[in-house]
Amino acid sequence: MPERYEIVPIGRVRSPFRDPGEAPRQGREAAVESIIEVEPAYLEALEGVDQWERLMVVCWLHRADRGRLKVHPRMNPKNPLTGVFATRSPSRPNPLAIYTADLLEVRGTALRVRGLDALDGTPVVDIRPHISRLDE
Amino acid sequence: MPERYEIVPIGRVRSPFRDPGEAPRQGREAAVESIIEVEPAYLEALEGVDQWERLMVVCWLHRADRGRLKVHPRMNPKNPLTGVFATRSPSRPNPLAIYTADLLEVRGTALRVRGLDALDGTPVVDIRPHISRLDE
Repeated sequence: MPERYEIVPIGRVRSPFRDPGEAPRQGREAAVESIIEVEPAYLEALEGVDQWERLMVVCWLHRADRGRLKVHPRMNPKNPLTGVFATRSPSRPNPLAIYTADLLEVRGTALRVRGLDALDGTPVVDIRPHISRLDE
Repeated sequence: MPERYEIVPIGRVRSPFRDPGEAPRQGREAAVESIIEVEPAYLEALEGVDQWERLMVVCWLHRADRGRLKVHPRMNPKNPLTGVFATRSPSRPNPLAIYTADLLEVRGTALRVRGLDALDGTPVVDIRPHISRLDE
């Protein structure tokens, strides 16, 4: 039996996007603000996060098609079919979305950020500082 | 009952590091080469990956302590206890490691990369192009 692990939402995105047609293709292409509502159980894990200006926010795209191995990049049928690991498509075996976001404000367990394109209600599975030396 | 999702290894890291003491703290701080052995079932998903020079490689640190909400950054007890979401500690509710790596060579399902600090055998859960416009 293949190995599997459990990934657990630690919060949820609150955003103006209710359905996929409304969302821009990539967070950084829009200057939209979202709120990350972290579960109260993880309040302690946020301590010190306000010292960072840029975060990596990892979401789990729970509605994505996990079975596709090839896609047309940017959902444009004119782009030739390409392996999902060579694209940023949400369709992938583990439908993670990894955003670099600006942290604008922290209020308790609510983080106001800019740079996500996630639909309202998308599970958040990790938050970490974006560090230029490591991530660029 | 809390919501949970299944995350599935799509491959594994082959690296010179057999135990945690040997590994550098962050991949970009070492110029070590690793091989990512992707499962043969995902061969098609790699098509086109060789056109990219830099990848994001996401691992699942299956030995990490998922229950800790605060850590001493860089495992140095002189650093004050800090919420895990304000650090890059492997101890976090969902123990993802996200590396920016240089892609050196693709041979079938084996990717030779530079920039990982993962232990030999670490599960890989995603591979995607690193795109400066989006990730920096």
